[in-house]
Amino acid sequence: MGLLKFFFGFMLLILGGNTVLSVFIKGKLSDVITSHRHLAPDLKEKYFTQILDHFNYNSLGNGTYDQRYLISDQYWKKGYGPVFFYTGNEGDIWEFALNSGFMLELAAAQGALLIFAEHRYYGKSLPFGKNSFDRPEVGLLTVEQALADYAVMITELKKELAAHNCPVIVFGGSYGGMLSVYMRIRYPNIVAGALAASAPILSTAGLGDSKQFFQDVTSDFEKVDPSCRVAVQGAFQKLNVLAQQKDYNQIQTTFSLCKPPGSPKDIHQLNGFLRNAFTLMAMLDYPYSTQFMSSMPAFPVKVACETMLNSTDLMSALRDTVGIVYNSTGDLSCYDLYSLYVECADPTGCGLGFNSYAWDYQACTEIEMCFESNNVTDMFPLMPFTEKQREEYCFKRWGVVPRPGWLKTQFWGKDLSTASNIIFSNGDLDPWANGGIRKTLSPSLIAINIPEGAHHLDLRGSNPDDPESVINARKKECETIAEWVKAARMEAS
Amino acid sequence: MGLLKFFFGFMLLILGGNTVLSVFIKGKLSDVITSHRHLAPDLKEKYFTQILDHFNYNSLGNGTYDQRYLISDQYWKKGYGPVFFYTGNEGDIWEFALNSGFMLELAAAQGALLIFAEHRYYGKSLPFGKNSFDRPEVGLLTVEQALADYAVMITELKKELAAHNCPVIVFGGSYGGMLSVYMRIRYPNIVAGALAASAPILSTAGLGDSKQFFQDVTSDFEKVDPSCRVAVQGAFQKLNVLAQQKDYNQIQTTFSLCKPPGSPKDIHQLNGFLRNAFTLMAMLDYPYSTQFMSSMPAFPVKVACETMLNSTDLMSALRDTVGIVYNSTGDLSCYDLYSLYVECADPTGCGLGFNSYAWDYQACTEIEMCFESNNVTDMFPLMPFTEKQREEYCFKRWGVVPRPGWLKTQFWGKDLSTASNIIFSNGDLDPWANGGIRKTLSPSLIAINIPEGAHHLDLRGSNPDDPESVINARKKECETIAEWVKAARMEAS
Repeated sequence: MGLLKFFFGFMLLILGGNTVLSVFIKGKLSDVITSHRHLAPDLKEKYFTQILDHFNYNSLGNGTYDQRYLISDQYWKKGYGPVFFYTGNEGDIWEFALNSGFMLELAAAQGALLIFAEHRYYGKSLPFGKNSFDRPEVGLLTVEQALADYAVMITELKKELAAHNCPVIVFGGSYGGMLSVYMRIRYPNIVAGALAASAPILSTAGLGDSKQFFQDVTSDFEKVDPSCRVAVQGAFQKLNVLAQQKDYNQIQTTFSLCKPPGSPKDIHQLNGFLRNAFTLMAMLDYPYSTQFMSSMPAFPVKVACETMLNSTDLMSALRDTVGIVYNSTGDLSCYDLYSLYVECADPTGCGLGFNSYAWDYQACTEIEMCFESNNVTDMFPLMPFTEKQREEYCFKRWGVVPRPGWLKTQFWGKDLSTASNIIFSNGDLDPWANGGIRKTLSPSLIAINIPEGAHHLDLRGSNPDDPESVINARKKECETIAEWVKAARMEAS
Repeated sequence: MGLLKFFFGFMLLILGGNTVLSVFIKGKLSDVITSHRHLAPDLKEKYFTQILDHFNYNSLGNGTYDQRYLISDQYWKKGYGPVFFYTGNEGDIWEFALNSGFMLELAAAQGALLIFAEHRYYGKSLPFGKNSFDRPEVGLLTVEQALADYAVMITELKKELAAHNCPVIVFGGSYGGMLSVYMRIRYPNIVAGALAASAPILSTAGLGDSKQFFQDVTSDFEKVDPSCRVAVQGAFQKLNVLAQQKDYNQIQTTFSLCKPPGSPKDIHQLNGFLRNAFTLMAMLDYPYSTQFMSSMPAFPVKVACETMLNSTDLMSALRDTVGIVYNSTGDLSCYDLYSLYVECADPTGCGLGFNSYAWDYQACTEIEMCFESNNVTDMFPLMPFTEKQREEYCFKRWGVVPRPGWLKTQFWGKDLSTASNIIFSNGDLDPWANGGIRKTLSPSLIAINIPEGAHHLDLRGSNPDDPESVINARKKECETIAEWVKAARMEAS
């Protein structure tokens, strides 16, 4: 789910260091805040003294850490309005806050208190600072700990803010949407409902087809133009022929690589690097340019296909197409494969930098993503990622043995009949969508499908270029959430 | 909840060692099995290779341990009949199996597979053997780990036994009943319903009145004869006067102590020792003698009151009354206070021996039992047990800091509106009852109150001396469970 992670990693690379990155982000954020000025959410950054290990009273975690969160009471009907709580996922919490404009609009409409909580081991919520990814320190990075963090934080902040009578609704996108689902099923005593946007709760629990993800990425490009798929597939096949011939210099030239590949391993890396660009464009196929995620143009999949079909040389076209993602500014004169893309336990990408370590660890433990491309059901090279490969990689990298089936046991898989008050929203353009819940399961387990939507488009703020389908989705979400809040009040009274 | 723990501790004391205890229990068990011969549950003892730490992939627990369980397929309609799963609590699993005859009768009636799982850190399920109660080893003793053990065990055993289509119903008494509730609310994907017998889910989560428990113990004796309460209270007051006068020799003589008390601490210990006998008699106030729990006579509360009122010397009467519990055989010539009773973080008693360590640790971490007696709302001496006292004791004993409110956060407290398919049964004689759910909350959250019942009487096998109320309770439980199983089948098909 290498969305924001990628962005940060990329910035880190370009700007060459943490300090610069930090300054850059601050500048960037203030721009984005300006663009949100009409909503003017007075988000304050705070830290919560959080239990380090909720599940072991005698562990190394017998202490606390500082968990970052953002809060705004600007729209809140104090002591009465609901609490809208974003269950932070794999990145800096500011990024989620600033790309979840819908929550701000909704808070304004419904008089809600806004809280965005940062996930442990991401952003500035590093329990052991720079040593957070050492062993055994990294062991406290689990879904259960993150959920307990949120449960404890909500409980304490409600006390602190005299919000006893304020129903809590959780929101999240992608893995954050999964966490929202889990919060509602695990802590319905604390959470009255959940909007889970683009939450692939099935595919990340090892349920479903390992071919689905890259098949659906492919499908996005095919839908724009069937010849686009043919072209991409053809380009990868040509690359494969060159690789078989070990014509590494030709490959270097054609793909503008800083160094020629020297082995099948490098070719594998190149294939991963190329495939990842398509993954990102499919996920981020928004109807307007998203400056904040590198410089993704409006409708990047369409732009990609135009680029692919613009040249008779398929491989050059492929190089130019991935440039939409890796070289939007045109500043790079060549691609350094191992800096721009790092292979990890998530075949859809972990990004780069600190946050990517955390996500790789999660993909090595609880989150199961053995997705493969195969050049038959998708347009990409044959790149399997079996349970065995995952196990070997994860043991080598982190000293852990994944436990397939655990997430399904813990969080119910598709056995959701006893759950309630969850919206599962998904965009049809999003390759994650078919790893989630696509059909309404009951009057209170509602699937909302957005035909023109990419990855959690509905969480973004309103935009003049929004398609009708996301406007309708947000309307339905707004009404449903208002009903949940009302029902929670009635039950409490 | 020092029921079985007490028995084991007592035996340990009398027999003087672990080896002897083990032999003794085996002998004892075979007797009990004989007495159950008409049901002849062909219980086999097995071990399950269990994950040591479900919530940390890089902990010292990155391995497995052998978890004991008992299984019988004697009544099972193979591959079709339900699974009746006892969520073992704070003791040897054989004891629970042999005192849950109702499950056997129900399995026979409904063609069920029977499984009794032992709770980690109890009985023979010690993850680190003799070192299990060292630090940090003891840290893996939590409610969450125990529940995850059961979830994993059920999932795996269902695969192994081709029981995919067999709905699982969990059963438990006391803390085991709490675990049954938690299993249903935490893992409804795995568990179709729960019979929670005498499960004090509220009072152990810090909800309710800290005076309730000893008030209700007192009430049992008062109901038999109001003068009984007066006599007990008077005896404790007389003891208090002697203690104030430091007339320790008189106290030794009157209470048949092996050593004279020498300090207020010893007096405190004496008071705890005496009070504990009443706790046990109230909990075990069954209508027939229960050989298995030392030699408790039928209606021990009635016997106690007869004893109390049989002598004009109140303190001697008190001594003789506690003898019902501590000296049923009459073999002890004097009481060694510190061997017969150990004060711990559970004011209702942790018993003695290994299992008591585990329960003390749980009472120091997640399970909150700050119960007090005060000589006003109850007949016992003033013995507060505040949160502060608990914190001090627990830090000193185990190096842990309790986190009040955690159990309520984790397991919902009284906010059970989203739960379903749970029977909360309670006996009116049981001092734990009013710490549990006494009113039906919905058509699928059913309270069954048993006026003549003591601590989870309904889980015991049928007996000619059973009061009508427990017979009716079991009938209702049987019908409800059959409905759950039927509904679960329909949902699955």
